[in-house]
Amino acid sequence: MHDTAFIALDWGTSSFRLWLIGHDGRVLAERRSAEGMTTAAATGFEAVLEGHLADLGVPATVPALACGMVGARQGWVEAGYVDTPARLTGIAAGAVRVPGIARDVRILPGIARRDPAAPDVIRGEETQILGALAAHGLQAATLCMPGTHSKWGRVAEGCLSAFSTFMTGELFAAVTGHTILAHAVAGAPDDEDMEAFRQAVAAALAAPARIANLLFQVRGGQLLFGRGAAAARETISGSLIGLEIAGGHTADGSELVLIAAGRLARLYGVAFDVAGLPHRVIDADAAVLGGLSLAARSIWPSRT
Amino acid sequence: MHDTAFIALDWGTSSFRLWLIGHDGRVLAERRSAEGMTTAAATGFEAVLEGHLADLGVPATVPALACGMVGARQGWVEAGYVDTPARLTGIAAGAVRVPGIARDVRILPGIARRDPAAPDVIRGEETQILGALAAHGLQAATLCMPGTHSKWGRVAEGCLSAFSTFMTGELFAAVTGHTILAHAVAGAPDDEDMEAFRQAVAAALAAPARIANLLFQVRGGQLLFGRGAAAARETISGSLIGLEIAGGHTADGSELVLIAAGRLARLYGVAFDVAGLPHRVIDADAAVLGGLSLAARSIWPSRT
Repeated sequence: MHDTAFIALDWGTSSFRLWLIGHDGRVLAERRSAEGMTTAAATGFEAVLEGHLADLGVPATVPALACGMVGARQGWVEAGYVDTPARLTGIAAGAVRVPGIARDVRILPGIARRDPAAPDVIRGEETQILGALAAHGLQAATLCMPGTHSKWGRVAEGCLSAFSTFMTGELFAAVTGHTILAHAVAGAPDDEDMEAFRQAVAAALAAPARIANLLFQVRGGQLLFGRGAAAARETISGSLIGLEIAGGHTADGSELVLIAAGRLARLYGVAFDVAGLPHRVIDADAAVLGGLSLAARSIWPSRT
Repeated sequence: MHDTAFIALDWGTSSFRLWLIGHDGRVLAERRSAEGMTTAAATGFEAVLEGHLADLGVPATVPALACGMVGARQGWVEAGYVDTPARLTGIAAGAVRVPGIARDVRILPGIARRDPAAPDVIRGEETQILGALAAHGLQAATLCMPGTHSKWGRVAEGCLSAFSTFMTGELFAAVTGHTILAHAVAGAPDDEDMEAFRQAVAAALAAPARIANLLFQVRGGQLLFGRGAAAARETISGSLIGLEIAGGHTADGSELVLIAAGRLARLYGVAFDVAGLPHRVIDADAAVLGGLSLAARSIWPSRT
């Protein structure tokens, strides 16, 4: 792929994604694998990357730009943090070059909120936000990026002023895997019970402080009313997503933007509808690729 | 112990407690073990009970009264539920006798809240409430019984009108054991960081809907401010207890009664102080024993 301008890498804790981007900005090839930071820290980051690039025939003269946990302290090279308020177009300037290797590989920094009353960090989502807002010409927005650690952010005049992490996905996994409710969801069919999901979102929005009780009602509902495993799973999911929206969203007149893909995009979309919150959906993969491309153009202007 | 009037049993999921009560109402002997329902379901409930009673020399003519999960479907004999609103002095009438054994052993029912919008069950705590209110001459109260599954109840004119389970203790175990925060609490010293606990209670009371973010701030606080493992543990504990109080307590003018023992009594007492909620503390062990004794006197009036 001698016409590759640069390599874009979204390298998270448990996933690795690589795109080859042409001089005209188009995607020439794509690779996805489970060789995230955790795996690559054991097998070697350079070996993982160069293995894919050798398969694709990309010479060592083509540079690569990465975002995500690959820049954490336990990643390849620590890329540090830009502090809030952070101008999104400025993160490229904080990219750190991986030393001692043939290829020019740079890693974008994360963003830190050094507020003693609400300390928080993101790594990867800042690149999604950059790409999402640029693609849609937005200078201001309230952003929701659902996941294991959902992120909510506020952008005004192109600056990320504040953000918060909600460990919604991880709470779902812990509650359904490691509490008495594991019995309640066991054997749930693939078919979703979206009515149970909607009811749970509404209940959590109405009484978020009662979340520890709303979750336990799943057990009461099975014992006393014979409710099924799919209803249990969707009730837990809807309760936790409703809780996140109740805590994460504050009406300030800015547009609500959901950056997500697949099942999470669908579930959060339904939850926002239950909450009566109009929102725009931006595909998460397109967003991160757009952000990496913007940053790459500012780092290597002559290549793109 | 030929002067034993009856045997009182608090038989929960993971614990077994036995008291021999004399004709004058005094405790003649006590046994505690980890032979809860889960263990006894495998080894045999009668074998567990009679093993202890043989050691103590209690003849088969002495009856026994039990409360707790021993009366669940997966327990010794299912004792069913009394529905809310439930007169506390009436639960003895719902006791179920274990069939086919020499000794007269009876198990008290639980209480069910058959509200489709808030289905809930308790088993064991109803006996604590009975004993606690009787010992203190209370006819009305708001009750908090902290634990793996904390219970909040409302009693008026001697009736339990409604109650709710908050899975606070189990959430603490799941969050500290099975999420990214397991790293944050690893190696925490025994010394408690009570200032971190108080701050976390206050933060959760102020913004309970943000609990999934308040928990994640533990990680942010370690990454950005080098906070320690004890602070992490007490922040998680305080956040979840503050959340429970925010959701469980509604001011209705009734006295707030905390039925608890040991560390939980202390932590919830501090949390109620942070919340500015005056409360009375009643020892949980004394409460359950008092409730079992009251019920036993109504079942076997000639023995007591």
